[in-house]
Amino acid sequence: MSWIDVPDGSPFPVQNLPYGVFRYADEPARVGVALGDQVLDLAPLSAAEGLDGGHVFEEPSLNPFMALGRPAWTAVRAWLTELLTHDTYRDLVESHLLPAADVEMLLPFEVADYVDFYSSQHHAENVGRIFRPDAEPLTPNWKHLPIGYHGRSGTVVVSGTDVVRPSGQRKSPTDQAPTFGPSARLDIEAEVGFVVGVPSAPGSPVPVGGFRDHVFGVCLVNDWSARDLQSWEYVPLGPFLGKSFATSVSAWVVPLDALEAARVTPPVQQPEVLPYLRGDEPWGLDLELEITWNGHVVSRPGFAGMYWTPAQQLAHLTVNGASLRTGDLFASGTVSGPDRGQRGSFLELSWNGTEPVELGDGTTRGFLEDGDLVSISASAPGPDGARIGFGSVAGRVLPARSV
Amino acid sequence: MSWIDVPDGSPFPVQNLPYGVFRYADEPARVGVALGDQVLDLAPLSAAEGLDGGHVFEEPSLNPFMALGRPAWTAVRAWLTELLTHDTYRDLVESHLLPAADVEMLLPFEVADYVDFYSSQHHAENVGRIFRPDAEPLTPNWKHLPIGYHGRSGTVVVSGTDVVRPSGQRKSPTDQAPTFGPSARLDIEAEVGFVVGVPSAPGSPVPVGGFRDHVFGVCLVNDWSARDLQSWEYVPLGPFLGKSFATSVSAWVVPLDALEAARVTPPVQQPEVLPYLRGDEPWGLDLELEITWNGHVVSRPGFAGMYWTPAQQLAHLTVNGASLRTGDLFASGTVSGPDRGQRGSFLELSWNGTEPVELGDGTTRGFLEDGDLVSISASAPGPDGARIGFGSVAGRVLPARSV
Repeated sequence: MSWIDVPDGSPFPVQNLPYGVFRYADEPARVGVALGDQVLDLAPLSAAEGLDGGHVFEEPSLNPFMALGRPAWTAVRAWLTELLTHDTYRDLVESHLLPAADVEMLLPFEVADYVDFYSSQHHAENVGRIFRPDAEPLTPNWKHLPIGYHGRSGTVVVSGTDVVRPSGQRKSPTDQAPTFGPSARLDIEAEVGFVVGVPSAPGSPVPVGGFRDHVFGVCLVNDWSARDLQSWEYVPLGPFLGKSFATSVSAWVVPLDALEAARVTPPVQQPEVLPYLRGDEPWGLDLELEITWNGHVVSRPGFAGMYWTPAQQLAHLTVNGASLRTGDLFASGTVSGPDRGQRGSFLELSWNGTEPVELGDGTTRGFLEDGDLVSISASAPGPDGARIGFGSVAGRVLPARSV
Repeated sequence: MSWIDVPDGSPFPVQNLPYGVFRYADEPARVGVALGDQVLDLAPLSAAEGLDGGHVFEEPSLNPFMALGRPAWTAVRAWLTELLTHDTYRDLVESHLLPAADVEMLLPFEVADYVDFYSSQHHAENVGRIFRPDAEPLTPNWKHLPIGYHGRSGTVVVSGTDVVRPSGQRKSPTDQAPTFGPSARLDIEAEVGFVVGVPSAPGSPVPVGGFRDHVFGVCLVNDWSARDLQSWEYVPLGPFLGKSFATSVSAWVVPLDALEAARVTPPVQQPEVLPYLRGDEPWGLDLELEITWNGHVVSRPGFAGMYWTPAQQLAHLTVNGASLRTGDLFASGTVSGPDRGQRGSFLELSWNGTEPVELGDGTTRGFLEDGDLVSISASAPGPDGARIGFGSVAGRVLPARSV
């Protein structure tokens, strides 16, 4: 179909066309598109072609492009597909391809507000059993609304950024008083994030059917979590320092348009949800995630089984009149399936440290040790029978600093 | 002391000099300083005087000025004081004074991350008794750490902005299932907010003693709250839609330098807090708040009795390595004193609607009705024996829109 040479199995065939922000040599950061193991330099290409509005690709964030809205997103995608499938453009395009190995990937968008949901029933039940063993695993509200909370936007970092082990207060039920020190139960949460392009007005809820008008694309998220800090602090106002030190996102944002073939009907919701959460279009997504811990695959969670869809999350998020801004990020919450090999956090995989995880090299882990490297990747059915991917969101744990 | 004419009892004598952002006629928004019932137009004044770095006052937000740091804040304050106390500058300055009635006040700073704390023991105990009547009013962590959570930055609005009554899910313990509709228990929270000017690096906690280096100033906050939405949603991840529809801030940010005389020793903390929360400098602040409901004073909370100080809040917020950005806002949580006439929310004042509040005109209220106007003001001891104020944070409730 395309003249471009993409290695077999690459997450970035011509059917994907995810957007990111890169720096090459000492030139200004700007927008690129991943193609196999190359990056297409959109700013000079769109300038050469006289693309209307192409100056947005000269910016060091996707926000100006995302703010243009779906007609522009669709037009640019069609333009790129045209260039990449007609041999006449080959010389032009090739002159704007850079080896991915030669560029530095930066945070792809400026994060406005960051909301984290809790939409996997298996994850919520596992956490409930671990943190509240004497209570029902699901709180009474769980099947009526997609539970969520605001996270810290200023500490969202791009894949590849090291994560310093956080310090803080922790107190086990048997301790007399809290103590201070580096987290001893540092964890990950494998999630899928949705990036808002088009803002909404205060007081104007976005219905379930408005999802496609506002959401630009999808990325991977690792919501690093210090379980010992979290369990001591989170009653009654929710997670705070246990999460706020770092949240990693993938460098590439896959446009929603590339995921049409990945759409599936989500699980049946029973009891039936309130009308504002109902929609005719299915927004389940058949993404297959994979988590590696020091290079060893420890879990393969499936996103298709998530109880709440991103379209429902967006409708809930705005139903009280809260407005959206370009760059808002909302994440799914940990993606966990029913089996042990499908759990999306180490808290669940090691059952709070009581069932060590084998890393394939003879070592085992309960939670993260200093120097550990975690990488989360995902793939999905793409256009024209292609398999597309998200690249990965990866990060290494550095030792705590002395305070 | 000053040649300038400030009406008796004005919150903005020459000893205060709070900063805000205004629009005059159809000119670009820019930075001003409140003086009595006038606004000093800093951009042309600083240009006329050749003030180094004065271009920051041409911006439509305080962020560029705040990012300059304390030496610049101190220098500008000294320069203003010089201009306003020497008669030789009178003609110059008067040519840059605008009647406050003729300008529109805008959101004074771009909000980066917004964190809300929960630092009044009286408030936390009242809420605990109302929401969790069968449990201890304070959770076990409350006296060990300043509990906080992230709120929605994108819905922080300036004083005077109308607030549309939010809709959402609510379910009382006796309801079989949740219902959807306009909040029936719309409330306020009278708070004090602290605005960060100087950022911090990831992984580098700001100690209690670093408060003055990072925090630019202080404003008033009304954290509008839909109690029925909140009580159904907040377990286990904290408040979300019950708070995210709107948070109002005063138009004027009082510089920390104007509040030296307001500093007091905060209440004794027992049990003793962990070392990272201890400091030599007292950062209690003797601010007297006043809440009016449709013009009738219903409460006068005192800020001096807050259990956790803003310096402790900042140290806690960053102790896990979370970084600060210019424009970060952290608020105290509801300011409530021990007496009924000192409660900072209507939830507490009306004891969840069971003890109606009299508005002085024969009407009573449990929670907010459509059309109600709430205004929160505050005053404090200022420099040279002056009494300084914050102006107010006010907002009117508009009816819910149909969804």
